[in-house]
Amino acid sequence: MKLMRVTTPENVLELIEKYFQPLDAETIPLERAGGRVLAEPISAGADIPAFERSTVDGYALSARESFGAQEGLPAIFEYGGEIPMGRPAPELSRGQCYLIHTGGMLPSGADAVAMLEYTALLGKQVQLYRPVAPGENVIHRGEDLRRGEEALPAGKLLQAQELGLLASLGTADLRVTRRPLMGLLSSGDELVPHLTTALPPGKIRDSNTLSLTFLGQKYGAAVLSGDILADSFPLFLEKSRELLKRCDFLVLSGGSSVGSRDFTTRTMQELGPPGLLVEGVSIKPGKPTLLASSGGKPILGLPGHPISALLIFSLFGAAIIRRLSGRQAGLYRPSVEAVLSRNLPSQGGQTEYIRVKLEQTEDKLIATPVFGRSGILSTLTATDGFLIIPAGKEGLSEGETAAVFLWE
Amino acid sequence: MKLMRVTTPENVLELIEKYFQPLDAETIPLERAGGRVLAEPISAGADIPAFERSTVDGYALSARESFGAQEGLPAIFEYGGEIPMGRPAPELSRGQCYLIHTGGMLPSGADAVAMLEYTALLGKQVQLYRPVAPGENVIHRGEDLRRGEEALPAGKLLQAQELGLLASLGTADLRVTRRPLMGLLSSGDELVPHLTTALPPGKIRDSNTLSLTFLGQKYGAAVLSGDILADSFPLFLEKSRELLKRCDFLVLSGGSSVGSRDFTTRTMQELGPPGLLVEGVSIKPGKPTLLASSGGKPILGLPGHPISALLIFSLFGAAIIRRLSGRQAGLYRPSVEAVLSRNLPSQGGQTEYIRVKLEQTEDKLIATPVFGRSGILSTLTATDGFLIIPAGKEGLSEGETAAVFLWE
Repeated sequence: MKLMRVTTPENVLELIEKYFQPLDAETIPLERAGGRVLAEPISAGADIPAFERSTVDGYALSARESFGAQEGLPAIFEYGGEIPMGRPAPELSRGQCYLIHTGGMLPSGADAVAMLEYTALLGKQVQLYRPVAPGENVIHRGEDLRRGEEALPAGKLLQAQELGLLASLGTADLRVTRRPLMGLLSSGDELVPHLTTALPPGKIRDSNTLSLTFLGQKYGAAVLSGDILADSFPLFLEKSRELLKRCDFLVLSGGSSVGSRDFTTRTMQELGPPGLLVEGVSIKPGKPTLLASSGGKPILGLPGHPISALLIFSLFGAAIIRRLSGRQAGLYRPSVEAVLSRNLPSQGGQTEYIRVKLEQTEDKLIATPVFGRSGILSTLTATDGFLIIPAGKEGLSEGETAAVFLWE
Repeated sequence: MKLMRVTTPENVLELIEKYFQPLDAETIPLERAGGRVLAEPISAGADIPAFERSTVDGYALSARESFGAQEGLPAIFEYGGEIPMGRPAPELSRGQCYLIHTGGMLPSGADAVAMLEYTALLGKQVQLYRPVAPGENVIHRGEDLRRGEEALPAGKLLQAQELGLLASLGTADLRVTRRPLMGLLSSGDELVPHLTTALPPGKIRDSNTLSLTFLGQKYGAAVLSGDILADSFPLFLEKSRELLKRCDFLVLSGGSSVGSRDFTTRTMQELGPPGLLVEGVSIKPGKPTLLASSGGKPILGLPGHPISALLIFSLFGAAIIRRLSGRQAGLYRPSVEAVLSRNLPSQGGQTEYIRVKLEQTEDKLIATPVFGRSGILSTLTATDGFLIIPAGKEGLSEGETAAVFLWE
């Protein structure tokens, strides 16, 4: 049996950064840009906001004229009227003030807003009982963004706040990285399509196609699924080559047997140069993971067991999609803190992923490991997430706190 | 000025559970079920797997016949041939063994699989150098799921592993909770559609419609957006009533002025019974949050400032969509641990959300607070997430570790 060149999970992530590049850019309307990644920086075309705005309901005035105001000796202003929202403000005369609403436009000549609670309107006079500093309760023109300033950098994922900022700039279209098209090919003589009603002896229904399509889309790819292939090397090579031509990235979900793994490996090598980059990863489950490059297009070979396949895809498939999408910001994987309900020994030498079930008690979250072979999907659906025992560690103890990464 | 009845964020979440119920169910095909929530439990229609399967590549045999085998005195088996993947296995005769692949079907009469590395094939004989226990390297029929056993409970969110499990069961269609339709109505005399090219004085472009549509979809709703309305109570009431008829849930994004907030409040009260449930929340930013029920349909009134609106929606809008979708499992909000780069004083008495920027150093993650008024969207796009100072706490100190919740 040929020995695998096994590498660490961290090294696989570095190889993904090194061997693959962001896809080209396309122009799309802002309404469809949620979840996409900016291909070019965007600058503000004008000051945001475009005028001095009040941050409170109150009276717009000249701060200088409020100095010295106090409870027993209020400053007196002439009431000029109300500034309607969304209308140009009038000009402020000396000694005047205007009623202004939150978000309203300050009159020229005004540089501050006195909050309503420190004032009283008496006929055509406004009394102010404390001084107001210049700029108080005002958002200045260009305070959010100055004209020409970079609003968002290239590589930024466009989420709610980025869409909001771009909307406030009046952005109609923008340049984003093309959405990666991920090809998915399953093989295995034992597999039948999942809609097969009567299962012939020895056959199982294909579960990876639906699972991996969901995950690929979740991580930002479009997914193109090929047929289920029989365990035949020439067929596998031909279909892989065909699908790879139409896609940016290929995922091979081979069978779990040594023979099946062998021709997946050969296929990935044949599709080079440079071919195979990773022949195994020091991770459990998921050791028989393969990674190759076909002239810059990534090919990920998943382990045969469904649980290993999902874990590996959520780690490396996600990283590949992220890389092809051109995302630049740091990768922070959020988790919840939970206390272990039992000891978790580990053999060390490899990163271990342990499935856990969570339970909320009054003051803490309890994590209970769920074991089961990596062919048993129900151990995955019965858990809330997983924790990681790093390669250098000999396990975790009951009562110890661990970071649990959620499936959702 | 009327005093608001202010409640805690925790109490708002309890009111959402108490006043609103999951929507009715619909039947959809499994291929489109990702991200949806099961309305009814699903039982296994057959044993999964449907036959005894090998978990390794090796020889299928009767464990009893391997007892006593050792390096110097191997057990000898007659080689019966190879069991092809996906085919019914032959029957095992006494003293026989069959080559089997990972995932292959065990012959009747076999109850264990010996791994290849402990064997040698010599002509028509297989020598085995250690004993194998009954059941070793075998997944038993029904070990994943027994026929009639509950595969997934009602209220389960369908993600990759649930789709995989249901595919392996041959599920074609299933009952899920209807996807909530969220209506979105913005008002404000100062607002113009975001595609407005030349901004008239005093006007700003609407940013909430795009932001909140994105978030609503992200949390699992479909979104129906109304027009931007002028600040007029009768108009607001009429349009709210109309939109609410067509939706399961209404989000009102009113202006930031006292007057605008006042008629949003009146609208929400008028749309009862029972009308207003929450008139303010002890949270910063986001205090002027409103929640009402119109005959069981939730209405969420967002604060006027864009940042407050997004934060509040990601908290309570998400909880409402979750509730209407019928999700049952615990709500665990994942975060990353980061060390504060400076002191963060707090006035106490309210839950404070502080925006932070993250930076990865060699051994830890550093969180730096970014301040800025809640009208300034660029302070949101420049940060990675937020941390929470609980109501009872007087702030956080430099060097202290805090949980940071990411925007993504």
